Amino acid sequence: MLIQDTSNSLAHTLHLRRQSLAKLIDFPAILWSGSPSPRNFAANTFPFRASSHFIYFAGLSLPNAAIRLAAGELELFMDDPKSGSALWYGETPGREQIAVTIGADRAYPMSELELYLEGAATIPVQDAATWTQQSQLLDRWILPQQPPQGIDLQLAEAIIQLRLVHDEAALSELRKAAAVTVAAHKAGMSAVLKAKTEAEVRGAMEQVIIAHNMTCSYNSIVTIRGEVLHNEHYHHPLRSGDLLLADVGAETQTGWAADVTRTYPVSGKFSSTQCDIYDVVLAAHDACIDKIVPGVEYEDIHLLACTTIAEGLIDLGILQGKAEELVARDVHALFFPHGVGHLLGLDVHDMEDLGDLAGYEEGKQRSSRFGLGYLRLNRPLRPGMLVTIEPGFYQVPFILNNEQVRSEYQDVVNWERLSQFADVRGIRIEDDVLVTTQGHEVLTAALPNTADSVEGLVMGNW
Amino acid sequence: MLIQDTSNSLAHTLHLRRQSLAKLIDFPAILWSGSPSPRNFAANTFPFRASSHFIYFAGLSLPNAAIRLAAGELELFMDDPKSGSALWYGETPGREQIAVTIGADRAYPMSELELYLEGAATIPVQDAATWTQQSQLLDRWILPQQPPQGIDLQLAEAIIQLRLVHDEAALSELRKAAAVTVAAHKAGMSAVLKAKTEAEVRGAMEQVIIAHNMTCSYNSIVTIRGEVLHNEHYHHPLRSGDLLLADVGAETQTGWAADVTRTYPVSGKFSSTQCDIYDVVLAAHDACIDKIVPGVEYEDIHLLACTTIAEGLIDLGILQGKAEELVARDVHALFFPHGVGHLLGLDVHDMEDLGDLAGYEEGKQRSSRFGLGYLRLNRPLRPGMLVTIEPGFYQVPFILNNEQVRSEYQDVVNWERLSQFADVRGIRIEDDVLVTTQGHEVLTAALPNTADSVEGLVMGNW
Ligand SMILES: [Mn+2]
Ligand SMILES: [Mn+2]
Repeated sequence: MLIQDTSNSLAHTLHLRRQSLAKLIDFPAILWSGSPSPRNFAANTFPFRASSHFIYFAGLSLPNAAIRLAAGELELFMDDPKSGSALWYGETPGREQIAVTIGADRAYPMSELELYLEGAATIPVQDAATWTQQSQLLDRWILPQQPPQGIDLQLAEAIIQLRLVHDEAALSELRKAAAVTVAAHKAGMSAVLKAKTEAEVRGAMEQVIIAHNMTCSYNSIVTIRGEVLHNEHYHHPLRSGDLLLADVGAETQTGWAADVTRTYPVSGKFSSTQCDIYDVVLAAHDACIDKIVPGVEYEDIHLLACTTIAEGLIDLGILQGKAEELVARDVHALFFPHGVGHLLGLDVHDMEDLGDLAGYEEGKQRSSRFGLGYLRLNRPLRPGMLVTIEPGFYQVPFILNNEQVRSEYQDVVNWERLSQFADVRGIRIEDDVLVTTQGHEVLTAALPNTADSVEGLVMGNW
Repeated sequence: MLIQDTSNSLAHTLHLRRQSLAKLIDFPAILWSGSPSPRNFAANTFPFRASSHFIYFAGLSLPNAAIRLAAGELELFMDDPKSGSALWYGETPGREQIAVTIGADRAYPMSELELYLEGAATIPVQDAATWTQQSQLLDRWILPQQPPQGIDLQLAEAIIQLRLVHDEAALSELRKAAAVTVAAHKAGMSAVLKAKTEAEVRGAMEQVIIAHNMTCSYNSIVTIRGEVLHNEHYHHPLRSGDLLLADVGAETQTGWAADVTRTYPVSGKFSSTQCDIYDVVLAAHDACIDKIVPGVEYEDIHLLACTTIAEGLIDLGILQGKAEELVARDVHALFFPHGVGHLLGLDVHDMEDLGDLAGYEEGKQRSSRFGLGYLRLNRPLRPGMLVTIEPGFYQVPFILNNEQVRSEYQDVVNWERLSQFADVRGIRIEDDVLVTTQGHEVLTAALPNTADSVEGLVMGNW
């Protein structure tokens, strides 16, 4: 038996989180951490990363563990290291020691979990070894791909209420992730003049993340083909005239993420056409961030990005018409086909494992419109929410070469004028913005984003 | 229908590999590539890495694909990118294009695989989504944790025969992995003087691997606690007097691995006690490599390492007695508790997914002896085999503080003398050695390993 220790700050944070949960649900919750996923053979696993819901209430990324939360109390289920494991892994903290660290009320071996299952809700963990174990123990299907039901849905909704608004401990970690991400992007900009390939810039950026003992919160995008939105190739040679789009974020040891994008010229100098489009994207970025205050609908921020981009493209002679009307016809989505951002927290798309439950307020649903359907967040902003703002401009052949698209938008796109901007494949500018009671705070503000300052960083004279 | 194209070298290599397979089995084989493993939510996956057996015969690390090998022919099963995926992933090569690249005789959508299952053997893929699919389609359990049986066992044994001996195409990739790994270790040595933590050295090393558009073939070990054999923590500060053990290897884009360890002083200078032990480990390393010629039993190489280490420790006054007799009593294993190396190829422990089927020659089994039980390879060497040679010396508290161990070896260990070597926690020196018809070739020979040269690299004057 353990005396609960809330003198340490992690234990105190976890205590407050489960107290808040206890106000929202009156049944127990069991959260599993998950098990390491094998890469090419059992002993060669991907780096372990616990389920975010587990981390939120257990504080640590422990493999093969579970916690039970009931009426504000925390019970830890995990096995002590196997006898002999000290040979390979050294002295690792045992169950009792971890229980003290996280302020658990009681701690048991994993085998005793089956005695504590009654009436418990859960959330599926992604790895199949774990969700099959969850399904077997709870005697119902707990599937990552299916929307939760019954008490599992109630638990998910309660956790979403908590995780939507970050507490001080979370913000402290999120600031660390942001700071290291800023440093990584600066390293990328400093490396690009000498780099011969995308991979070399990626190496310079991820080195910073690794050196701070963090991991990447998602697979980095570092590409001269910025129009390929999920480009995970890094082999292209860098050529003068190319723009490099780098979307790279760090994650702290306890799982809190950052997510930042910058786009900059490989040569250190934007062409005039690149600069023109860059300024359009930056105008949208700045306008959206300016608009962030509690109570504003995130969808309206998205629409502001769309309108600002449409206005900019009208000014450049690429589009013709009135910005609002173009946006109503989804014309912006020809060049800006994704949403302006998403929730950020323990997951880079926070709580996306729950589908749209977290991103969409109750009663709201994904639009089927081309210009809105990819919006991942549709809620009024509240203090403590952390969101990304990441407008972009892309020339996606799949969209722009589509005959139906071209004829539908024949009257509003000046294709000849557009062809003068062929050296702009893709530009995105992404920052992480905290909603505060006063308005907002850009956690990644230390990373310059104007065309001038970005050029200065690349040329080494910023 | 495709005309088989063996004019390109990848297709030619794959053609030869399946011709060789066809001489060993007279039933079809179906090999699945596997699917990406989710990290914290479905869209955020670990970097995909296909099953090694698939890569060996398909050449490329394709997700969600399968190949059927029968009578020397290759059939590819995979789906074309979904309509709309070009928006997110750009134009990716379709089934027919990949079929040409790899020289497939025919190519089908994945849904047609069920028409080609009859009498086919397979090998389980590690991820649960895939092995459950394999089990469902073949209507029998295909489990990664269970030894294969029947035709699956015959297939495994045939593939082992091929993969044990590397062809020219494999060697070309393995040399690339070795070269980048050498560069990564040099970068680590160059970084250690200025680095403040293990993580910073790791960052300097992995940067090189990432910059070459490769991945790590396993989770790096970069630690001042070298006595913790599988240490995946990187937070320790580096202090003058510490030795840093770095076990880091690159893997090429098509999955071929390297595996190298160096141990060096954080200050740039070994203490005299560190240098003494280092030279013992190096003597074992050099003696083992010298011994590598076709026909030699790898177990004898391991025993040579044990004897050489025992001799060195006798010379230093840490052990007393005759080296052979000490090894017969497993005294060496107090300080060198693991095997001297393993197979290396597509997997860092090549074909370890098949248990000891690949590592142990038919009729041989793991010893229960403390000094032999961790040996992963027990076969006579053949030209074309690639093995690691990685002797080490460790002061593992779990072993050396064990009362039973201390009393059992009371007569042969001079504990007082040993206590003078307290600044040696763990030393390992590991290289990748190809067995040639003439003898051997060290693929990682470009990385210095003497105490002098390692000091020189750290001090920047090598
Ligand atoms: Mn983002
Ligand atoms: Mn090794």
